[in-house]
Amino acid sequence: MDIQDLTRQLHTQNASKIVMLVADGLGGLPRTPDGQTELETARTPHLDQLATRGVQGASIPVLPGITPGSGPGHLGLFGYDPLKYVIGRGALEATGVGFQLQPGDVAVRCNFCTIDRAGKITDRRAGRIASHESAPLAISLRQVSISGIELFVEPVKEHRFVVVFRGDALQGDVADTDPQATGVPPLDPIPLNPASARTAEVAGEFLAQAHHLLAGQTKANFLTMRGFAGKPDLPSYRDVYGLRAAAIAVYPMYKGLARLVGMDIVGQAATLDDQVALLEQHWADYDFFFVHFKYTDSTGEDGNFEAKVKRIEELDAVLPRIAALQPQVLIVTGDHSTPSWLQSHSWHPVPTLLVSDCCRPDPCRRLTERDCIHGGLGQFEAKYLMALALANAGRLGKYGA
Amino acid sequence: MDIQDLTRQLHTQNASKIVMLVADGLGGLPRTPDGQTELETARTPHLDQLATRGVQGASIPVLPGITPGSGPGHLGLFGYDPLKYVIGRGALEATGVGFQLQPGDVAVRCNFCTIDRAGKITDRRAGRIASHESAPLAISLRQVSISGIELFVEPVKEHRFVVVFRGDALQGDVADTDPQATGVPPLDPIPLNPASARTAEVAGEFLAQAHHLLAGQTKANFLTMRGFAGKPDLPSYRDVYGLRAAAIAVYPMYKGLARLVGMDIVGQAATLDDQVALLEQHWADYDFFFVHFKYTDSTGEDGNFEAKVKRIEELDAVLPRIAALQPQVLIVTGDHSTPSWLQSHSWHPVPTLLVSDCCRPDPCRRLTERDCIHGGLGQFEAKYLMALALANAGRLGKYGA
Repeated sequence: MDIQDLTRQLHTQNASKIVMLVADGLGGLPRTPDGQTELETARTPHLDQLATRGVQGASIPVLPGITPGSGPGHLGLFGYDPLKYVIGRGALEATGVGFQLQPGDVAVRCNFCTIDRAGKITDRRAGRIASHESAPLAISLRQVSISGIELFVEPVKEHRFVVVFRGDALQGDVADTDPQATGVPPLDPIPLNPASARTAEVAGEFLAQAHHLLAGQTKANFLTMRGFAGKPDLPSYRDVYGLRAAAIAVYPMYKGLARLVGMDIVGQAATLDDQVALLEQHWADYDFFFVHFKYTDSTGEDGNFEAKVKRIEELDAVLPRIAALQPQVLIVTGDHSTPSWLQSHSWHPVPTLLVSDCCRPDPCRRLTERDCIHGGLGQFEAKYLMALALANAGRLGKYGA
Repeated sequence: MDIQDLTRQLHTQNASKIVMLVADGLGGLPRTPDGQTELETARTPHLDQLATRGVQGASIPVLPGITPGSGPGHLGLFGYDPLKYVIGRGALEATGVGFQLQPGDVAVRCNFCTIDRAGKITDRRAGRIASHESAPLAISLRQVSISGIELFVEPVKEHRFVVVFRGDALQGDVADTDPQATGVPPLDPIPLNPASARTAEVAGEFLAQAHHLLAGQTKANFLTMRGFAGKPDLPSYRDVYGLRAAAIAVYPMYKGLARLVGMDIVGQAATLDDQVALLEQHWADYDFFFVHFKYTDSTGEDGNFEAKVKRIEELDAVLPRIAALQPQVLIVTGDHSTPSWLQSHSWHPVPTLLVSDCCRPDPCRRLTERDCIHGGLGQFEAKYLMALALANAGRLGKYGA
């Protein structure tokens, strides 16, 4: 019995609203052992005020020491055990470009490459071909025609693009064709079990036609395929939590992840202000709102400490508008840490704040990496956060009599 | 999917070095509620300095309240779930005397006992016969000869010795012959499943010949057999972590445990100085070094608070030499607590320090039982420590995209 088996069984209904504000990559590191992190450096008067009313803790995205990608990071926050539910690479890539996978689809992450006359790979990433050159090539592959198959090809970035096969009897278990080496030909798409034979055949046909379509191209004249994956089978927010849930995000990846757990994507937002406006606008329509703020992660990945500090302050500035809506539960967290010092996602626990009328406030006065380890939520695996949200919203019944 | 499934999948290579310094039984207790523990009492200037740069936490060896033996204690530190991987008693005893078990061997922990003329046990431990008297008796049992079986008999201490059977079709599942009572004869070695029939037969033959060989001895004239066990099947450090690992220990038990997870045993050391010299000498040859310091445990077991304090200070004194090697990750921990107040292993969490350039330093200024509960690693199960070590060494890739 896991936490979602419990919430599925115990959830109840009321008029409460829950807001989960996810500052992507929120956690950071100091630049020297006695220095301050990005969060500690930022001026965050509104967050500080919430911190005095709320309870905080350090969220472990997956398990100690494990750095998550965006997929497992968000699944954890959404309460889906990221070790139990895995989003295949192809499915995640499709999700990231806003493609809405349907059950039975198979998505494949593809890389343009170059091959010589003997068919041997000379560059596995086609010299990291520029996006404006690779996109038309990807789109040209939409000419491929395979009987009984509906085909989608979506450019991603540089050498990367996504192919989705839609048709009968498809499934993801097909071997990658990238040999992970140059000087050898790409591998054949081999079915890894009998049920994926048709998918492997379709992939083979796609590769054969793509070979002709790309022949003569100088920048990229072939492709490899990786991470064949179907739509992950995730129970919905309504099912496991009884929540009508809305996602308010700018980037397709986070909209896509939210859609996979049954959230509605509301409106189009380009800025954080747009996002808060959408929140206000749809306040009556949903019980739960996932609001995703990207730039704490991207500035961290850029290694730009000061910019990350500014982005945290930008987030702080909109908190009064969110608080004015008087959600029963307001959560501020991140899907993982992205210390600008490391310029990448990391394994460090994420400062997490939960504010409600019935949380048990702790002595912490600011939400920071240093404070959260003394917080009332302790260190906890992210997958428990949704149960805490429901409990604080009065939406979880008693377990056992 | 457990933490080692993740590290097996995600580990990468670089030039980093990891040192895990295990002070056996490190954790202690104060002698009065407001008193100080052994660690708090000790003068540890070098450890204090590391504590200001590092992150600490309280390591739970197995689960809360569970006191581990040396086997599970070390398996946890090595990242092997001590509830999943069990080293049978016979195998641990063989390991403890430096016997290198091979796959297919069956090791048995034996106790000398005394029996009367009717074959009934009069003393289950032969009056805790002195080691210098029991060792020759154990060695005399090497005369036993069983067709198709290579036989090893190794004295241990007092009434204890180890027998190892090597041959075809052997396995551990045989019932103990110790009836746990006097006034009754020893039990027969009964196979607990059909595949252990041959082992039971071999054990029966050994007992019959031993009966003759020991007849007429006054101190000990028979034996009981317990904990029939094969070599535990543990994946190797190279497999689950991608690490070339070396163990630098004085006592056979810890060398043996390290060997079971595929570490190389480097050199012969009699003192801590010898151990550090070996560390320096083999620095270039390995990625990971397990350095085992026994005396924090043995002084604790002796109930000698002051001696344990001195041993902690002795350990502190070599830290500068270890730090001078500039490992990317330096861990100071213990496999369990051995409070001198209890004179035994205990369940109390173990103060644990991890120092690296990308750990997230916490406000703790000393490594102690009192500080570690406020540390940035929180309370964590020991089995996660290796994942944290790899992450801090930059040796773990991202989980999911």
